[in-house]
Amino acid sequence: MSFSRGPHTFQVSTNLFELNRQRLVTELLKNFDQNIKGNYVLLEGGCENTRYNTDADEIAFRQESYFFWTFGVHEPGCYGAIDINSGKSFLFPPKLAPDYAIWDGKIQNEQWFLNKYKVDQVVFHENGSKIIETLNAFNPINKLLLLRAENTDSGIVLEPPTKIPGLDKFETDTKILYPIIAELRVIKTDLEIEVLKYASKCANEAHKELMRHVKPNMFEYQMESLFRHISYYGGGCRHLGYTCIAATGCNAAILHYGHAGAPNDRQFNDGDLCLFDMGPEYNCYGSDVTCTFPANGKFTEKQKLIYNAVYRANRTVLKEAKPGIRWTEMHLLAEKIILEDLQAGGLLIGKIEEMLEKRVGAIFMPHGLGHFMGLDIHDVGGYLGLLDKAFADPELSKYLVKEKIEEFRGFGGVRIEDDIIILVNGNLNMNAELPRTVEEIEEFMSLNNKNCCGKQ
Amino acid sequence: MSFSRGPHTFQVSTNLFELNRQRLVTELLKNFDQNIKGNYVLLEGGCENTRYNTDADEIAFRQESYFFWTFGVHEPGCYGAIDINSGKSFLFPPKLAPDYAIWDGKIQNEQWFLNKYKVDQVVFHENGSKIIETLNAFNPINKLLLLRAENTDSGIVLEPPTKIPGLDKFETDTKILYPIIAELRVIKTDLEIEVLKYASKCANEAHKELMRHVKPNMFEYQMESLFRHISYYGGGCRHLGYTCIAATGCNAAILHYGHAGAPNDRQFNDGDLCLFDMGPEYNCYGSDVTCTFPANGKFTEKQKLIYNAVYRANRTVLKEAKPGIRWTEMHLLAEKIILEDLQAGGLLIGKIEEMLEKRVGAIFMPHGLGHFMGLDIHDVGGYLGLLDKAFADPELSKYLVKEKIEEFRGFGGVRIEDDIIILVNGNLNMNAELPRTVEEIEEFMSLNNKNCCGKQ
Repeated sequence: MSFSRGPHTFQVSTNLFELNRQRLVTELLKNFDQNIKGNYVLLEGGCENTRYNTDADEIAFRQESYFFWTFGVHEPGCYGAIDINSGKSFLFPPKLAPDYAIWDGKIQNEQWFLNKYKVDQVVFHENGSKIIETLNAFNPINKLLLLRAENTDSGIVLEPPTKIPGLDKFETDTKILYPIIAELRVIKTDLEIEVLKYASKCANEAHKELMRHVKPNMFEYQMESLFRHISYYGGGCRHLGYTCIAATGCNAAILHYGHAGAPNDRQFNDGDLCLFDMGPEYNCYGSDVTCTFPANGKFTEKQKLIYNAVYRANRTVLKEAKPGIRWTEMHLLAEKIILEDLQAGGLLIGKIEEMLEKRVGAIFMPHGLGHFMGLDIHDVGGYLGLLDKAFADPELSKYLVKEKIEEFRGFGGVRIEDDIIILVNGNLNMNAELPRTVEEIEEFMSLNNKNCCGKQ
Repeated sequence: MSFSRGPHTFQVSTNLFELNRQRLVTELLKNFDQNIKGNYVLLEGGCENTRYNTDADEIAFRQESYFFWTFGVHEPGCYGAIDINSGKSFLFPPKLAPDYAIWDGKIQNEQWFLNKYKVDQVVFHENGSKIIETLNAFNPINKLLLLRAENTDSGIVLEPPTKIPGLDKFETDTKILYPIIAELRVIKTDLEIEVLKYASKCANEAHKELMRHVKPNMFEYQMESLFRHISYYGGGCRHLGYTCIAATGCNAAILHYGHAGAPNDRQFNDGDLCLFDMGPEYNCYGSDVTCTFPANGKFTEKQKLIYNAVYRANRTVLKEAKPGIRWTEMHLLAEKIILEDLQAGGLLIGKIEEMLEKRVGAIFMPHGLGHFMGLDIHDVGGYLGLLDKAFADPELSKYLVKEKIEEFRGFGGVRIEDDIIILVNGNLNMNAELPRTVEEIEEFMSLNNKNCCGKQ
């Protein structure tokens, strides 16, 4: 077993990572003649960092996602390699100094890593030593495939390893690996889906606990705190995929609220809507779930109007989403439904077809429909728009019922975010157990509200 | 007001940072003729980082400590400067792109920063622009004092800023500032002490909650989770000064347990001792508190023996600690008491004076007596030792009663860690309210145990 936080949590098998490596080798072999010996994948794991120049950090090391996908290893400072022809896997954990035993715990031997991670060979490295020698001894090195990964959301590049002694004596390639491994990460195996389901289950439990617990005059950060606690205490999720967004009132319109400049520090009021976008990680696999509900448990008519528009868009897309459907098609479908419902509520006038063409929907839904999920939260930016720009633009303002829309100023926002797996014949919503309709939410909150710090 | 998390939390005044800047200027003026114009302190604040190459991170930005000490600013990407002759302070926050309003929240203007942080002038910078111009316009630049800070614990260097346009046109110094500002950080002002007291109070509340809540067969990480929750939910402490150490049984002997390689994942048993070393941060000021108690609420005789030795060492040092006393003297005093009590328990034979000389105490207390605290956790390494090495060393083994000591193998460890302020006439223990004697702990745990997730 590769990971567990007790019998009440999910037991992750090393098979998950063995299968990932097999898939990677299969894909890579399509790029090479099978008779060419000595092509290796060589990956560098993440290193432990401290806060600035100090010797401490508040949160434990979290492995780099590409390395984790391939080897499932939680310890920092490792390298890993795969012989592409034979599929043989090598793990190179750091050789620890004797002091480690006093400060950080028992120094495990190579056999311990072999048993835990089920790779084919484990060799300790010191500052990168022994890696090249080990691979070359197994099978003389022809070419080393390294990972150079430029994240399309952040633009930040994960650079390939450079400090391995002897690396410069061999041919390296930093182009072949990235598109193949990235594409493999998009398509989840059944073993990965089981972990994602567990992470979503933990998210569901924690979100429901927030709904039971919330009441007016609390502070947003108390909701963040409770979410983190329920996820970790009950689910074993030490890490989160992203900073918790605990947005209430107007703050719900800020898509990535919760960061240091807007740190979930508002005291919310009776009548406010809460938008809580939070997701724990288990074994580095993350969830990303948003629930929107009234702080006092009862939607106002205005809140219902907006909420139901978003809910209907969410459910309609869920009905349609399956293999072969275009993302942009689903985005426009969601926009269309929101436009229809806003028109029914008197906020818009004109022909829906025209509004779709002119992207009027983007004024009200200024982000993408969703994003991929897995080991990282890929928050792909969408279609930006702003209400005041729209009022000033005669092409757009003719569809807007200004006096009606002004009634909703300061309303905040509604987001309903589910974690979905696209299956061969449709999709699976991993958050189906959450109360989602206005009626379900109001009933759940009235039956369960206890304002106590949580179930055990 | 510079920082608060609601009326139930501590209200931090901007005076704290104004006073820090005044103290810095006063010290620096000793290095310069007061008539020399144009000497500035120029500091760079921390930047927001993401997890590896992704666009997300699980924990919000936390300011760099030297910058925070000087300006008290929580936002990332800032620069700050002080004119040493006049004391005039400048803050340069980053000019944010218009998209920020949709994704991250309201874009505040320069006046907002001026009101919030009570510096003398605020100017937005873009990639470091306008900083040199602003300072030079106020008073032609003579010399810029930059911070280059090599941390003595980690060896990591906080490098001075290099990317400010125009910086290379002026004389810079990276040696004057560091020792002065570091020394000023050691001596806390009354305003800083009030924040530290509040952080310690939050630690006390959370540690007491762990004592109320703990029971055998729980997992260590559940204690970490509860500590974080109580600190944040009740105290507004979003950050911790260091990764929580929730060590039980044998793990209590590992000084920095809790990291990714030893992630608080053990299920503990009836009869185990719990060593919980955890401290929250408030407004970047941290606490660092350790409590040791039995998981089932009742010490065994063996546990009492060791616990009482550590407790007596702790209390004796507390009685002695005051200005003018040497750290090493206190360390040896603690060792002496532990040796005495271990001897009384039959674990050691021989003369205490001899044992002190040969550092027998270091076998049982392989770390320093303590370390400075404040904005960072300075965990200064101490005197390393190991039992098996000692048994093998005839110079040491003659003091050890091997068969008796072997009875304590796998015992784990005891640590009692208080947060202390050295005052003119002695010291103040900010954790005095914690139950600390065997009797106090047993009584507290028997009266309060509720195994429920926390008081509100």
